[in-house]
Amino acid sequence: MEEVKVIELKKSVFEENDREADTLRTALKQKGVYLLNLMSAPGSGKTTTLIQTINRLKGRLRIAVMEADIDSDVDAVKIKEATGVESVQLHTGGMCHLDAGMTKQGLEGLAGDDRPDLVILENVGNLVCPAEFDTGAVKNAMILSVPEGHDKPLKYPLMFSVCDVVVINKTDVMPYFDFDLEKCKEYIHMRNPKATVIPICAKTGEGVDAFAEWLLNEVKEWQK
Amino acid sequence: MEEVKVIELKKSVFEENDREADTLRTALKQKGVYLLNLMSAPGSGKTTTLIQTINRLKGRLRIAVMEADIDSDVDAVKIKEATGVESVQLHTGGMCHLDAGMTKQGLEGLAGDDRPDLVILENVGNLVCPAEFDTGAVKNAMILSVPEGHDKPLKYPLMFSVCDVVVINKTDVMPYFDFDLEKCKEYIHMRNPKATVIPICAKTGEGVDAFAEWLLNEVKEWQK
Repeated sequence: MEEVKVIELKKSVFEENDREADTLRTALKQKGVYLLNLMSAPGSGKTTTLIQTINRLKGRLRIAVMEADIDSDVDAVKIKEATGVESVQLHTGGMCHLDAGMTKQGLEGLAGDDRPDLVILENVGNLVCPAEFDTGAVKNAMILSVPEGHDKPLKYPLMFSVCDVVVINKTDVMPYFDFDLEKCKEYIHMRNPKATVIPICAKTGEGVDAFAEWLLNEVKEWQK
Repeated sequence: MEEVKVIELKKSVFEENDREADTLRTALKQKGVYLLNLMSAPGSGKTTTLIQTINRLKGRLRIAVMEADIDSDVDAVKIKEATGVESVQLHTGGMCHLDAGMTKQGLEGLAGDDRPDLVILENVGNLVCPAEFDTGAVKNAMILSVPEGHDKPLKYPLMFSVCDVVVINKTDVMPYFDFDLEKCKEYIHMRNPKATVIPICAKTGEGVDAFAEWLLNEVKEWQK
C-alpha cells in the first residue's frame, strides 16, 4: 500500500481560533460580561425564545443581543421592538459560522457606555459549522424544536457535545410528532452527560422561566 | 419601526481571504503552476473522475493532487496507487471549507523539487460553504452526479455561479433517474452563462477526454 503525506490543517486553524476565543473570554470575565452562544437549525424558534427569556430577565440584568442568523435585520428589529434591549445585526453574507474574531467585532459594535451583564449571540442557523468554532462565549446553548425530531443528537454529534444547555422548543406540538422526550434526553446525554435539558414552549411561555433562571444563575456565577 | 445597528462582518472576513487568494494566484502564475479547485457534494465520484482524468494527462503534464475531502487518507492513497502522481491528504478535521490560507499550507506541503504544472485541489464535499471562499485557484470546477438531480443549480446558486466548468458525472444511470440534461444546462447557465458543461461517465471513461482536453488547454493558457 502506498503512503501519502498527511497535512493537518485543522490544528493551526482551530488552534488560532481557540487562542482568540480564550483571549476574548478572559477580557469578558474581567469586564463581568457573560456571553452566551445560541445555536440551532433554521426555524427552531430562536427569536421567540429570546424575546420570552429577555422579558423575564431585563429588570434584573442589562442585556444585549447580537443577531447573526440572516442577512436582513428582521430578527434584530423584532427583538428590539419586543424587549427594548440593545440589539445589533451581524451580517455574515452567507457565511456558515461565526468565529472568535467575528464575535469580537460584534461586541465592539455594541454601545460602549452601558456595559451589559449578558450578551446573547444568535449564531448562524446551521447545526454543523458553528459547532466547530469557539466564539469566545462562556457557554454554548442550542434550541432543538420538536418537529426536527428526537434523533438529532445522533445526527449532529459535535453540536450536542459542545452545548452546555439544550432547550427543547415547541413542546405544544409534541402530540402531533413522533417525538420521544426521554429518548431525546438520553441521546443528548450520550453526547454530553453534563448537558442541562430544558423543555419549553416559547409561544405560550411554558418552561421559559426555567431557562431564564438557568441563565440568571450563570451570569451571577460569572460575575462573582 | 425601530432601527438597529448593522455590522458587516462579511466584508472584512471575505476581503481578507480574497486578498490572500489573489496573492497566492499571483505567486502560482509566476511559477507556472495551475491550481484547479474541484468541488462537489459527497459521493459524486470525484476520486474516480480524477483518476480517469489524470491518467489521460500525466504524460503531458506534471500533476499533483491535494485531497481535502475526508478525515482519512483513503482517497489520496487511491489516487497515488492508480495514477502514480504525488498526492497529499489535507486533514480539515470536519472543517466545512478550505480558504486561501489553508490551500497555501497544502501547496507548501507538496514536494518542492519537481514543480507541478497542474495541482488539483479536491475541496471538502459540500455544496454551500466551499463556494464562499476563494482558495486562490485559477478556476473552479464542480462535479454534479446524475442521481443528485438536474435542479441542483436552483438550490445551490452560489456554487454554480462561481464554477467555470461543471462536469456532469454518472451519465450511464440517466435512464433510471428523472434527470433532464438540457434543463440542467439551462439552470447552470442561469447561474453562470459562461460555464462549460461536460457530461461524463467516470466509470466507463466516456466523456473524460473532453474534460482532460479542457484542463490541458487551461494549463497551457496559464503558462503562456
